[in-house]
Amino acid sequence: MIRRLAIVGVGLLGGSVARAARAHGVAGEIVGIGRDGARLAAALRDGALDHATTDLPGGVAGADLVILGATVAANPVLLERVWAAAGDGAIVTDVGSTKRSIVRAAERLAATRPLAFVGSHPMAGSERSGYAASRADLFDGALVVVTPTDATEPRAVKGVTAFWEGLGARVTALDPDSHDRGVAAISHLPHLVAYALMAAIARDGADALPLAARGFRDTTRIAASDPAMWAEIFVDNRDALLARTGEFRRALDELERLVRGADRAAIETLLSRIKVAREGLA
Amino acid sequence: MIRRLAIVGVGLLGGSVARAARAHGVAGEIVGIGRDGARLAAALRDGALDHATTDLPGGVAGADLVILGATVAANPVLLERVWAAAGDGAIVTDVGSTKRSIVRAAERLAATRPLAFVGSHPMAGSERSGYAASRADLFDGALVVVTPTDATEPRAVKGVTAFWEGLGARVTALDPDSHDRGVAAISHLPHLVAYALMAAIARDGADALPLAARGFRDTTRIAASDPAMWAEIFVDNRDALLARTGEFRRALDELERLVRGADRAAIETLLSRIKVAREGLA
Repeated sequence: MIRRLAIVGVGLLGGSVARAARAHGVAGEIVGIGRDGARLAAALRDGALDHATTDLPGGVAGADLVILGATVAANPVLLERVWAAAGDGAIVTDVGSTKRSIVRAAERLAATRPLAFVGSHPMAGSERSGYAASRADLFDGALVVVTPTDATEPRAVKGVTAFWEGLGARVTALDPDSHDRGVAAISHLPHLVAYALMAAIARDGADALPLAARGFRDTTRIAASDPAMWAEIFVDNRDALLARTGEFRRALDELERLVRGADRAAIETLLSRIKVAREGLA
Repeated sequence: MIRRLAIVGVGLLGGSVARAARAHGVAGEIVGIGRDGARLAAALRDGALDHATTDLPGGVAGADLVILGATVAANPVLLERVWAAAGDGAIVTDVGSTKRSIVRAAERLAATRPLAFVGSHPMAGSERSGYAASRADLFDGALVVVTPTDATEPRAVKGVTAFWEGLGARVTALDPDSHDRGVAAISHLPHLVAYALMAAIARDGADALPLAARGFRDTTRIAASDPAMWAEIFVDNRDALLARTGEFRRALDELERLVRGADRAAIETLLSRIKVAREGLA
């Protein structure tokens, strides 16, 4: 049981953490910290937060668990301020889509003062952003990756794992490098591809947009995701993402070559293998 | 009102036509025609069909409206048999995803005997296939493209349009070339990209599959589509599809170049434009 939970950045993920923590009764008191007090008003009104403040040190003081819910570029900066303000017993985590940068930032800060940090990445989200898109059930049954290293305090892993499980999530551990390579494949590449697909159609095939059916809508849904957030993710994880993009290009090359050669039997064989792989997703 | 509706190929689309025609009461009698009588049994049992037969000429005889529901490679062959068997007053259409080939086939056949044909393409479907995936409401609010040419009999367009509207669909007309170029962008390219994405991850990033969340699932859903059907579509519409693939590659090139250069501001600007385009989809 957490007496005081502090959430820095109450958007889609931070807001969902607040609502889920409230719904599951895992925190005595929930404090939301943001740059703009007015933006936090809805979360206060909903009862997702007990307190809202623009004062980071004040909000973080006395918290057992601090969750960074800002973007991957903002979180390392905020982490430095949290590191200075949090009590000695606090556990700190984040919910960003990349983990090498934030874990590296935490390990640099740990040289100045020991504090329990472990990275988290809930594999749940939405193409919508902001507190208005947050949901108490966002983490129900979702997978959360925690990313300890040899330097991580075991109580951080234990506390953060228990927290996510308390919100209904499943938790798995990966080192930050493996995490970033994995999500480059399963999340960052699909976003890049969806954005490219939507860009191509908007530019060269806009007259066909009225024909769009569910296939197109689903394939491009995540091309409506938050541009600032995704620009930061793409840049922060660019080495892994560009490697994955190369793999995607090779798969596209092969399909294109078979289509160009009108090799129906070979295309069918390849699509059958792909279908089996897709259906193998639990 | 159609006295006798004949459906050649009672799979996802043919089966949905039968169920929707029954639900909307637009046909007196519904006949299903297939190669395998046992496969039609479920549709008979459901009451979607009044009769089921493997005898194409017998099934088509006396029909006011004949709908080809087989694949884009099979339909032209079946059309030739329908052309020989249908009564003089019959109207014929198909539900294939490409239209140039089938319209060309109909125009060749029209030289031998006048018969009212117009192509149809309901912009509705599923990654699932077969009668078991059919739904009475598949066409509710869906767009159906009909593809008349200068040679098309007006009563074919009128009759087929009224039929689709009777099933709850909206109907628009496009010439076969414009249709095939349009669906290459809005349907065939997204399928090719989804297949390539799933192929790349299955081959090079399979260890990341347990991390898959809704974004990956939605983006690759249509990679589970019917391989034989899509091999035929890709080959039949390969010129338009390869042109669209080139447009997609240019959009991907641009994004990749910005990611490689870590140009966060330019990426954000581009993603913002793409987001607006995606949100512009009705």
